[in-house]
Amino acid sequence: MNIPRTSYPRIVIIGGGFAGIALAKKLSKQEVQVVLLDKHNYHTFQPLLYQVSTGGLEPDSIAYPIRKILKDFPNFFFRLANVEEIDIKKNKVQTNIGKLKFDYLVVASGSTTNYFGNSEIERHSMAMKTIPQSLNLRSLILENFEEALLTSDLNERNALMNFVIVGGGPTGVELAGALAEIKKGILPKDYPDLDTRMAQIHIIQSGNCLLKGMSAKASEKAEVFLEKLGVNIWKNVKVTNYDGRTVTTNSDLTFDTATLVWAAGVKGATIKGLDAQEFVSRGNRILVNEFNQVKGFDHIFAIGDIACMATKESPNGLPMMAQPAMQQGDQLGDNILNLIEEKPMRPFEYTNKGAMATIGRNKAVVDLKRFKFQGVFAWYVWMFVHLFFLIGFRNRMVVFVNWVYNYVRFDREARLIIRPFKNRVED
Amino acid sequence: MNIPRTSYPRIVIIGGGFAGIALAKKLSKQEVQVVLLDKHNYHTFQPLLYQVSTGGLEPDSIAYPIRKILKDFPNFFFRLANVEEIDIKKNKVQTNIGKLKFDYLVVASGSTTNYFGNSEIERHSMAMKTIPQSLNLRSLILENFEEALLTSDLNERNALMNFVIVGGGPTGVELAGALAEIKKGILPKDYPDLDTRMAQIHIIQSGNCLLKGMSAKASEKAEVFLEKLGVNIWKNVKVTNYDGRTVTTNSDLTFDTATLVWAAGVKGATIKGLDAQEFVSRGNRILVNEFNQVKGFDHIFAIGDIACMATKESPNGLPMMAQPAMQQGDQLGDNILNLIEEKPMRPFEYTNKGAMATIGRNKAVVDLKRFKFQGVFAWYVWMFVHLFFLIGFRNRMVVFVNWVYNYVRFDREARLIIRPFKNRVED
Repeated sequence: MNIPRTSYPRIVIIGGGFAGIALAKKLSKQEVQVVLLDKHNYHTFQPLLYQVSTGGLEPDSIAYPIRKILKDFPNFFFRLANVEEIDIKKNKVQTNIGKLKFDYLVVASGSTTNYFGNSEIERHSMAMKTIPQSLNLRSLILENFEEALLTSDLNERNALMNFVIVGGGPTGVELAGALAEIKKGILPKDYPDLDTRMAQIHIIQSGNCLLKGMSAKASEKAEVFLEKLGVNIWKNVKVTNYDGRTVTTNSDLTFDTATLVWAAGVKGATIKGLDAQEFVSRGNRILVNEFNQVKGFDHIFAIGDIACMATKESPNGLPMMAQPAMQQGDQLGDNILNLIEEKPMRPFEYTNKGAMATIGRNKAVVDLKRFKFQGVFAWYVWMFVHLFFLIGFRNRMVVFVNWVYNYVRFDREARLIIRPFKNRVED
Repeated sequence: MNIPRTSYPRIVIIGGGFAGIALAKKLSKQEVQVVLLDKHNYHTFQPLLYQVSTGGLEPDSIAYPIRKILKDFPNFFFRLANVEEIDIKKNKVQTNIGKLKFDYLVVASGSTTNYFGNSEIERHSMAMKTIPQSLNLRSLILENFEEALLTSDLNERNALMNFVIVGGGPTGVELAGALAEIKKGILPKDYPDLDTRMAQIHIIQSGNCLLKGMSAKASEKAEVFLEKLGVNIWKNVKVTNYDGRTVTTNSDLTFDTATLVWAAGVKGATIKGLDAQEFVSRGNRILVNEFNQVKGFDHIFAIGDIACMATKESPNGLPMMAQPAMQQGDQLGDNILNLIEEKPMRPFEYTNKGAMATIGRNKAVVDLKRFKFQGVFAWYVWMFVHLFFLIGFRNRMVVFVNWVYNYVRFDREARLIIRPFKNRVED
C-alpha cells in the first residue's frame, strides 16, 4: 500500500464503525498519521438497519462516506481494504491490497452474526448487520409476499407469510414491531388478495424476557407493545435448527417459515494473527486491559464490539453497543497521544447513558440513569436521539422527511425489490 | 397465474414504465380488469438515473412501488413477472410465473440498450437504463478512484481516472456534466493524493452535434457549458470497439479507460411472439397504427418506447421519451374503452411539449414550443419539471432535500459503494 512515510507515528485503525470513527476524529488534528482501513467506503448507522429492511428508510441515508467524515485532515488516509492478517511480530497488517507497517494498531473490526456453530442456520437464515444484508432481507420479505400470491398450496403460502425472528434484543424487537406494522398498514392495501391473518410474526427468545440488558419495566412494556401489535412472543424457547422451511426448537414447538431472521447473537469479528486463544475471550472478543491494550502489547489496541474489557459492572466485557464503542474510541485517542508523549494513560471508565428501543408508532421504551419511561414520549426521545447521532445533515434531513411521511401516512414507500434476493433477474 | 376471472374484459399490460402506468391509471376506475406485469415491483423515473450513478440521489427516491400507485382500484392486479412469450394465436402471455389469457394486450415493455451487435462493447461497457445498472456504475466510478490510489503504474491510473461516455443525447450530456462536477467538487477533497487533472471526461458523438433532437441553440449552448466544465467533446467520431481498456474509433483516436458508459442508443425491448419481421421496424420497435394497434390485430397494442408510430413530423416513429409514452398510455385508455363499447377510437396525436437537459449547476437548456432558453432559469425550470413529474410526495421531498443540500454544499453524499461492482466482498 503506497502511503507516504512521514516523521509522524503511524496509527492504523481497522474498521470505520462507531469506535474507529470516534478515534480517527480525535486523532485527526494531531501530529500523527492515521490510516483507516474498512471493507466498505462508508460508515453504517447500524441502529436503523431494521428500517431499511422494512422499507421505511433508504439505505443511502443511514450510510455516510468515510472519506467525507475526515476530508479536512491532511494526515488522514483511508483505504478500502479487507484486512486478512495481522503480523504482530513484524508490526504489519496484510490486506487484499497489500501490506502496511504500523507503529500503533487499533482493531475496531466490530462484530459479526454468531450462529453458535450451526452451519445450517447460517446457510438458510437472514442476518441484519450490514446494509447489503438489510437490503437482502427487504427484498426477501417482498418477494415472499409476491410468491404467496401465486401459490395455491396453503402450507407453502403460510410459510411465505410467516416471519420468525430469533433473538429478543433490540434488533429483534424493533424488527418484529416494524413487520407487525407492515402487516397492519401495508399488506391489506398492497395485497388485497392475501389473507393478512396468515402473516404471523414470531419472536423467539431463549431467555425469560425481552430486551435483557434493559430494566424489567422496559422489558415488560416492550412485550405489551408487541402483543398489542399482534406479535407472537415465545420465551424460554431455544431454536435448534432451520432447514430453510421448518424451524425446530428444544421443545415440541416448530415453525414453518420461508424467512428466519437470526438476531440471536453476535461475536467479535476477529482477524487472523490476533485470534489465538490467549487473546480471545468467550464470544470471540479480544481481551484488553483498562487502556484497551491487547494482552502483551503496548502498541496494539482493540476498541468497540471486538474489545472485551472486563469491568466491575460487566465482568464479561462491556455491552456490544454504540455507546461504549464511541467512548472507547474517543478516549483511546487521548491515551495514544499520551503514550507517544510518554505521559501516563487514563484508564477507561464507561458512562452508561442508558438504552432504548422502539417497538412501533408511538411505542418505545427508554432507560436513562434516573428516569425510565415508555410510550409516546419515549418514542419521541428515541427518534430525537437517533437523528442526533446520525452522521451528516443531509442524512438527518432525509431520515426526518421519511419519518414524518411514514408517520402521517402510515406508510413505508421504500418497499422496493431493487436487487431480488431469491430470483435474480437481469439488471 | 391465479387471477380471478370476472365478467369484465381483461386487459394485460406488459411494463410499468411511463406508458404502462399512465394507461393503468386511466383504466383503473373503469369496468375492466387490469393486470400489469413487470419484472420490477417499482416504477423507475429514468430521467434521474444519472444522478443515482453520480452519488447525487439515492435510488429509492426515484423508484415508486407499483402496487402503491394503483392500490385503491379493486380491479387492478399486479404481478412481478418476466414475460417470456406472447402467444398471439391463443391470446396468452407466457411468463416465468405461469400463463395468462388476455382479452386485450398492451405491450409497454420499453427499450433496452442498443449495442448495434457489438458483443465486446456490450460485455465491457456500462449501461444506465435501470436502477441496478445505475448503482453498478456508481460503484465502479468510486472503485476506480480507490484503485487509482493504489497503483504506481501511470497508464493504469490514467485509465482508471478516465471516463468515456459514448452518445451525446440527454443521458450522455447529463452524465458528463455530473462527472465533471465530481471531478471539480468531490475529487480534490476525497482523494487529495490523486492528481485530478488525470480525471478526464470524454463524450463521443457520432453525429456533428450534441442533443440532436433539440434546437441548434440548445445544442450549441450545451457544448459551451460542457466545455466550461472541462469535458472533452469529440464529434463525428464513431466508437468501433472496447476491450475493457482501450476504446478504438473510426479514426486514429483511441482512449484508455476502465469505464465506458454506453449511451449511444436504445432499441425496443421486444418479446418473443411479437418480434417477427412483419411486426418490427428499424430499432426493434413494434409497428403500430394511429390507434397504437399492432398490425393485423384489433386487440393487441404497443405504447411508449416499444411502439413505432410513424407521424408526419416523425416518419421513423415518435421519439423514445417519457412524453409520447405518457400521452399514448393515457389516450389508449380511452380508446380501449371505446373499442369495448363499440365506439370509434380517436387517432393519437403527439403534443410535443418540448425537451430539456441539464448540464450542471445553474446550467440547463430548455426548448419549449415558443421559448428556447438556456442557463440559470432553464436550470430551475428543469428542476421544477422533474420534481413535478416524479411520482409520490415523499420522493419529491427527498429529491428536493438532496438537491438543495447538493447545491448549497457543492456536494454529493451518496458516494457509497453499497454493492461493489468489480470486487465483490462478503456482505
